[in-house]
Amino acid sequence: MVTKMEGAINCLVEVFHKYSLMHGHYHTLSKEKLRKLIETECPELLKNPRDPKTVESVLKELDSNKDSMINFEEYLFFTTRLMVDAHDDSHHE
Amino acid sequence: MVTKMEGAINCLVEVFHKYSLMHGHYHTLSKEKLRKLIETECPELLKNPRDPKTVESVLKELDSNKDSMINFEEYLFFTTRLMVDAHDDSHHE
Repeated sequence: MVTKMEGAINCLVEVFHKYSLMHGHYHTLSKEKLRKLIETECPELLKNPRDPKTVESVLKELDSNKDSMINFEEYLFFTTRLMVDAHDDSHHE
Repeated sequence: MVTKMEGAINCLVEVFHKYSLMHGHYHTLSKEKLRKLIETECPELLKNPRDPKTVESVLKELDSNKDSMINFEEYLFFTTRLMVDAHDDSHHE
């Protein structure tokens, strides 16, 4: 029996794999995979008027090793960033 | 319409608030709140034979500012750690 929190953690890992395993390098997200992930899984990210973003700006922000790909460690920064935004929103509501 | 990923992110923020808002300091988890959170929301963490943990060891690991409380920024390390474990597990299965 999985708790809601465990389900949420598993979901975030599954989202990474859903796109990383699509084609090409299985352990990373290319810019095109990242675009599909963002447009499908968190489309609101590109619509925030307080902090406008593009797929390119997200990739640049996350790609700490500068290989133009997002590996799982870099994806962790992405989910952390989404949590910070969601936390901020919860205190603005 | 919230996607699964957005729901997962919101869930992780809500779990923090569920325990932080219980009593005492509303923006932090005391050791007892952290104990309740772990025992209720991610009980498997204390049962991993490969990496045995206690509430005390988790608190010590997360409490980077050494105030014996877990704030939201420190909680982000906690969820990141859970994702790393879930990712490792997915590759061991």
